[in-house]
Amino acid sequence: MRGYRVAIVGATGLAGQELIKVLEQRRFPMSSVVLFTAGLPTGQKIHVAGQIVEVKEITDQSFTSTDIAIFAAGDDTSRMFVPAAVQAGAVVIDTSTVFRMVQEVPLVIPEANIEDARQHRGIIASPSNTTVQLVIALHPIHRVNKIKRIVITTCQSVSGTGTAAIEELSAQARQVLAGQNTNPHTYPHQIAFNILPETDVFMDNGYTREEWRLLEESRKVMHAPDISVAATCVRVPVFNGCSEAVFVTFSHPIAPDEARYILAQAKSIKLLDDPSISLYPQPWSVAGNDDVYVGRIRQDSTQPNSLSMWVVADNIRKGTALNAVQIAEEVISRKWLHL
Amino acid sequence: MRGYRVAIVGATGLAGQELIKVLEQRRFPMSSVVLFTAGLPTGQKIHVAGQIVEVKEITDQSFTSTDIAIFAAGDDTSRMFVPAAVQAGAVVIDTSTVFRMVQEVPLVIPEANIEDARQHRGIIASPSNTTVQLVIALHPIHRVNKIKRIVITTCQSVSGTGTAAIEELSAQARQVLAGQNTNPHTYPHQIAFNILPETDVFMDNGYTREEWRLLEESRKVMHAPDISVAATCVRVPVFNGCSEAVFVTFSHPIAPDEARYILAQAKSIKLLDDPSISLYPQPWSVAGNDDVYVGRIRQDSTQPNSLSMWVVADNIRKGTALNAVQIAEEVISRKWLHL
Repeated sequence: MRGYRVAIVGATGLAGQELIKVLEQRRFPMSSVVLFTAGLPTGQKIHVAGQIVEVKEITDQSFTSTDIAIFAAGDDTSRMFVPAAVQAGAVVIDTSTVFRMVQEVPLVIPEANIEDARQHRGIIASPSNTTVQLVIALHPIHRVNKIKRIVITTCQSVSGTGTAAIEELSAQARQVLAGQNTNPHTYPHQIAFNILPETDVFMDNGYTREEWRLLEESRKVMHAPDISVAATCVRVPVFNGCSEAVFVTFSHPIAPDEARYILAQAKSIKLLDDPSISLYPQPWSVAGNDDVYVGRIRQDSTQPNSLSMWVVADNIRKGTALNAVQIAEEVISRKWLHL
Repeated sequence: MRGYRVAIVGATGLAGQELIKVLEQRRFPMSSVVLFTAGLPTGQKIHVAGQIVEVKEITDQSFTSTDIAIFAAGDDTSRMFVPAAVQAGAVVIDTSTVFRMVQEVPLVIPEANIEDARQHRGIIASPSNTTVQLVIALHPIHRVNKIKRIVITTCQSVSGTGTAAIEELSAQARQVLAGQNTNPHTYPHQIAFNILPETDVFMDNGYTREEWRLLEESRKVMHAPDISVAATCVRVPVFNGCSEAVFVTFSHPIAPDEARYILAQAKSIKLLDDPSISLYPQPWSVAGNDDVYVGRIRQDSTQPNSLSMWVVADNIRKGTALNAVQIAEEVISRKWLHL
């Protein structure tokens, strides 16, 4: 098997660390790997597939001998360095929000629309983790019964915000349990034993960017510009795992058993749906898992075209790192790397 | 001011304790108060409005000199003893689920349908706390623009389950923070740093009873048998306060400012709606408050008839105890006690 020269940008963050783990576990064909960080400190040494790799500061010259660069360092870094990486001949898989809605950039969830990656011009964008798990759960049904409307509430863990947020939740929980006051830093308000309906910057229309992305990204990935999506995204005091209460209206009537039958055969989905034994997906249990977990499938009492379901996945692993690596694997195996 | 002979059933539980606090704080006209519990231990002595009252075991003979009995001891106790209380001549305000959907029993949220209480035959039911805050937030708009459909996800605190659940959340949180395993008792799975999409018994159609009640109770209280309600109720690791992500479709178009204008003048509602300064309702902040807090009001991007909003209230205080006491106050002031 041929190996590829891989670069990981944002290697010291939660998503970057998970990317390294996923690449190792899946024995991704790497002939070399370089690790970059956009900020200080550099010089950290990280084990990757049996080698010790030093984390370097990213520059415009970082990608001269790179086949595949996976960016997981946030919007600013992607905005500044993705063009240089493409210029240098690398194919970039970008997990930031920067290029997702750029028309000529494919936005890809391999289970749903890997064919879109064929058209790439050097950048392939990976969607929000909230979109990844939503589309993986809904697309198999959408193929046979077109979605008209999605109403969704996401309960998002603090891992999506990063290491500091995980530490803040721990620290605040200890303080509350000790009867002390908390002092929020990462979030505008206390997150321990609380819920904040703010997961991103607010737009003028009252939605957060994260809520709006669920609309735009779902439409783009599913090639369904007419789907209506109404989302509320809230931050919950959970370390990892994103939970979604999803209400979907399809074009035609659909029974829960029909949905279960379709999803049971779909890629990357595990059904956990037996209320009689309290079997349903939970964020605590999905950490470290590759699948999207679906349960609580039931028909809307007054709308035969509508289903409710509960969809949970590891937002860092499946929602971010694994989706990016799967894109890389597919692009390689389909020989779309250098077009 | 005349005083009434009041009985509180379930006086040692969370809702019972809050009932006592609310009665005291509002200087409810009590000439006497008796406290009952359905289980052991009895004999506990509780301060009520300057007196020390001993908690007694409830029997069929407990209500021979009672004007108003407020039941907050759960379904079994209400099923067993409410008939005896009515028989003895008391007016019962029942917070259990037992009588809510009985046709001749009024189901009352004073802000919305106090007139229904006029028809009582000895029992007035108080709805689920999830319904109370939903209807208080939506009914003022419904009066001028009829609701057609509600899609709701509730994030419910452990206080709704009782004292043992609060202790379990604390204990499990400590264990997780210490790197220890947890051992669930009150809930089927760990609740600390986790989310459970199970807040009540499952029905054959896949809904929990709690989810189904949101449908039935909203229709009954608002006299709107055609409203379609799809609900997902989840338990979150929050000590107190119920948060609801609500998506509502009205009969006619409605702008967020119109909704804000109506709600700003409505009873028992506080608007906290300024995303630019991260102002929105949070369960941590509402504990102990009498109002229903509404924020994040925004229009559905593709549906001019639809609004999204975020509704939070103290489930024990506003959702349960205060609603029951307000019913009692209204029944007294309208002279509907003895009909």
